[in-house]
Parts: sequence; C-alpha cells; structure tokens
Amino acid sequence: MKIKEYIDGIKQCDRNILGQAITLIESSLEKDKKKANKLLQECNKITTNSMRLGISGTPGVGKSTFIEALGTHLIKQKVKVAVLTVDPSSSISKGSILGDKTRMQRLSNSELAFIRSSPSNGILGGVTHNTKDIITICEAAKFDVIIIETVGVGQSETLVKSITDIFIYLTIAQNGDALQFIKKGVFELSDIILINKSDENKEISESVKLSLKHTFKTFNNKMKKLIFTCSALNGDNIEMISNQISKCYIKKCKNGQMQSNRSIQNLFWLKNKLKDEIKNMIFNHNKIRKVYTDFNNNPSEELYIKTLNKIKKILK
Amino acid sequence: MKIKEYIDGIKQCDRNILGQAITLIESSLEKDKKKANKLLQECNKITTNSMRLGISGTPGVGKSTFIEALGTHLIKQKVKVAVLTVDPSSSISKGSILGDKTRMQRLSNSELAFIRSSPSNGILGGVTHNTKDIITICEAAKFDVIIIETVGVGQSETLVKSITDIFIYLTIAQNGDALQFIKKGVFELSDIILINKSDENKEISESVKLSLKHTFKTFNNKMKKLIFTCSALNGDNIEMISNQISKCYIKKCKNGQMQSNRSIQNLFWLKNKLKDEIKNMIFNHNKIRKVYTDFNNNPSEELYIKTLNKIKKILK
Repeated sequence: MKIKEYIDGIKQCDRNILGQAITLIESSLEKDKKKANKLLQECNKITTNSMRLGISGTPGVGKSTFIEALGTHLIKQKVKVAVLTVDPSSSISKGSILGDKTRMQRLSNSELAFIRSSPSNGILGGVTHNTKDIITICEAAKFDVIIIETVGVGQSETLVKSITDIFIYLTIAQNGDALQFIKKGVFELSDIILINKSDENKEISESVKLSLKHTFKTFNNKMKKLIFTCSALNGDNIEMISNQISKCYIKKCKNGQMQSNRSIQNLFWLKNKLKDEIKNMIFNHNKIRKVYTDFNNNPSEELYIKTLNKIKKILK
Repeated sequence: MKIKEYIDGIKQCDRNILGQAITLIESSLEKDKKKANKLLQECNKITTNSMRLGISGTPGVGKSTFIEALGTHLIKQKVKVAVLTVDPSSSISKGSILGDKTRMQRLSNSELAFIRSSPSNGILGGVTHNTKDIITICEAAKFDVIIIETVGVGQSETLVKSITDIFIYLTIAQNGDALQFIKKGVFELSDIILINKSDENKEISESVKLSLKHTFKTFNNKMKKLIFTCSALNGDNIEMISNQISKCYIKKCKNGQMQSNRSIQNLFWLKNKLKDEIKNMIFNHNKIRKVYTDFNNNPSEELYIKTLNKIKKILK
C-alpha cells in the first residue's frame, strides 16, 4: 500500500487500514521501517487534540473491566476512544488460559472504539517507541481519547507516564494490605489512584482510600491526590471518575503542564529511538553480523572470547 | 581487593566479601568487568552441588513470606540458603511504602542464610546474566539452596526458568478467578504451582487447586503437575512442599534432566552475554560515543537524522 492510501484510510478512521498501519510500525524489516518513518512524518503534520490516558495496575485488579466501563461511558457521549493494550504474554505459548479477546466486548463492538493489543517483546511493561508511534497514528485518526493499558511492575509505569498526559493507577483493597504493594514511585507518578472492586469490600476500600490520602499527605502536603473507590463491574463512580479525568486534563492544558510534558516526552523518546537504532545498526553491520551469527550457530565458551576479540578488531 | 582474597572470602562464606563480590559483578565499569570475569573463572572451578530454585508470582501473593517460611524450615535442617531477590522499584523514588528490608526478618538473622536484593535496572523481571553470575558466586560459597525471587509478569518467568533447576509459581485464590491471571506459558513452565494464603479462603483455594489440575490435564494428560495449597503465614503445608521440592530435584538429577537443562541454560546466557557485550562495545566506541553524547546533550528531530547518518558513516 502507498503512503497516501495509508493516510487517506487513517484520516477516514478505516479500522482495516489503521490495523495495517500499526503492523507496519511494529515491523522490524528495514524497508518497512523506512516506510513507517515516512508515514509517521505525514501523520505528525495532522493537527490533533487527543487526550492520552495511561492505565496501569498489577494483574487481577480489573484494568480491562475498568477500561470497558470508562470507554462505554465515553462513547455514549460520542467520544471516539482508542485502546492500546500491551500484552506481556509468555514466550512459550501466548495468551491467558481464559483468552484475552472477550475482555472488552461491548467496547470492541462499538463503531466509535478501536482496540489494539501489541506484544511486549520481552521489554518491561512492553512500552517502546512503537507504542509512542502507534499513538501518533491514532491521533491522526482523530481519536479523542487514547487509552494505553499496561501491567504495572514498577518500572513500566515510568514508561507509561512518559507517553501519556494523565496516568491512572488501579489497585484493589486486597485484604486491607493494599499499601504494601503500591510502590512510592508509582504513587508519585499517578494523577489518579483508583481502588477498584469496591462492591466486594466497601468498608475496607474506603479505609484504604483514607490511608492512601493520609500517606500521601505525609510525603507531600502541598499537592492534592485524586483517590477514589469504584466498581468497574457495577459502574459505581465511573461517571464521576470520567468527569474528574476531564477536569484534570483541562487544568493541565490551561496551566501549560500538558504541553511542557509532551515536549519533554518527545525528547525522551527521540533519545530512546536513537539508542535502539544504534543497536540495530551494529547487529546489521555486515562483518559483525557474520561473526555474531557464526557464534550463535555453534556457541561455546572458547568461541565467546574469540568472537569478542574479532568484533573489537572490526570496530577499531 | 585481590582475586585471591575474594576467593578465600567466598570459600569461607564471609558475608562481607560475598556482598563485595556481587557488587563487583554488578559494576558496569570496564576495569571491574575484567576483574569480575577473572573471579567468575575461578569460582567456576569450584565444584558445587546447589539446587537453584526460582520463585515467581504477581505482587501481593506472598512471595517474601513464603521464602521466609521455606527458608526458615530449611535452615532448621542445617541447609545453607541464599536468597536473591530482584527489586523492580520505580526509577523516581525507590522502595515500597512500607519498606522491603523487614520482609524476611527471621531468615536475615540466621547465620546459615544470605539475602541479597538487586535492582532490576529497567529490564523485564530484572533477570540478567548478572543474576546468573551471582548464582555462580553463591555456588562457590557452597550454599545448598539458592532461591531466586522475581515479580511475575509474563516474560520474566521464562528468564527465571532459564537460570533455575526448579520453578515455583505462587498465586492466590483471589475471588475465585485466579485462573484468568495465570498465563498458559507460566503454567507450562512451572514445576510446582502453589495457591498461597489458603488460610483466608480454604474452600476457594481447594477448588482453584482442583480447577488448575483439571485445566492442566486438558493441556497435557501425560505430565502430572504438582499443585498445592499453602499458608506461608501459618506454615501450613510448608514442610510437605519442602519435601516435594527435594523429590522433584532428586528425580531431575537422576533422569539427567537437571544436567541437560543446565547445559542449555549456559549456552542461552552465553549468547545473551555476547549480545550485551556487543551493545556495550558500540556505545564505548570513541567516535560513536562522541556523536551519541553530542545528540543527548542537545536532542532535536533535526540532529536525530544527522546523528544516524554520522554513525552509519563510522560503521562503514
């Protein structure tokens, strides 16, 4: 397909072409990369006004159910929603026992929504500059809200934060010891913290909410943290949270925080992209690739030292 | 410190020197790396007979409590235990709200135990060839059991599996929907699956155990999976599980699986190490480092293209 066809399809928000554009971006082939870069340059020219919303939390806290509830609420108001989930499925056999596809059924049936799952490729939390580039594609397709879902494991939240305007951390009032599992860093990164499944543990959820508010005050008494309980399953508090997200976003736009954040983020990802490109270049270097492939075909301790020395020579 | 001093200290299982040796291995300085390689060569000469035990599971399932319970049981029988935990703490401010240090108090006070926490450095699950090398050090110090604890997030289990003889996956019977959160791949990787916190949910834990056994049968009816409930907090089933681990290990030693696994693992990590070394070499290459640093000091879209072209020229 030609770049113009991609662009036309993306502008019309053609699901099929959107999917193909994302596949192009995720490709590691050299010729696809060149095409993808051109496509991204064109997409960057299209002015957009999307809100980038990061959602993270450990497995089992109800991220998908929450996104289904929030997304369904948004599309009722004619808001166009794209959901990008990063799938950390195992390298042996992919997918969860019960399957991932049925997780956001209502949302995936809507004309206003687009859901795409990307493999994490062994990278922590799976957020790469690919994710950043897929956001660019979705923005060119004029989605109003772009939700990025990742599994929370400490470092990945930092990366999600670095591609989003607003970051929501989901947790549950698990046996009342929720505090132990919220890392201080995650706490500081979050704009909004939600204690989900409050229908199962109303009292404990409320008390965890208060503890969290209190804990945050002891860290930083100047900032107010948005901490709410909710039940994504029942829809409890979803509308209120949706309004709070909008308020938070509008505030960040007005005080310039949103734009300054995005400038910082762009440079962060540009640095990241260069680093990755340099790594690609070295493994695609003719002589080095040969020596490296020879080692991989027949690896041994002895050949390891020899290979290292050969590469040192090539790089001299 | 000289290599001989390191080796003498390690052989005597001197906690202080052990710690310093691990710091040396984790160092990214070129001169430390050379020394570390020499140290590893010496350590590899010491014949050992350790069991490498991987323990994984999502945050909050009680990994530390389980290791404390199992470890305490082992040291009562004069078994020397080393625990290596990989800490995926956030890059903004490290550590959890309640602190990590008090998590394995009984164990850390024992003369027979050694506990070391390593940062994950943004790498998924944090298991790197450093972890592999730290195991080598602990084996030279003649620890009988070396436990490697990581947060389970899909891909990291594959890496933990690739440095251990036995892999235990910990989960809890969370609201009865535990199945959803156990990825098929993790299930297949595990030698033993434990449903922890069974004291809180006795009936549900038992029923999850049966479901898991049943689910596994439908995947593979030739292999028997070891699936147990336990309460690390109360000590329920800990002795039985400890015996099952021993049985599983002895079986793997007798049928040759343990040795063949380790050979495959060694080559896997050698390949990994070479890849990392090549990446280091390119960023330490005089000319490339200069161009790369120039970009990082003043990054922009324009300079990005220029920098890529400059590096392409250098590598020609």
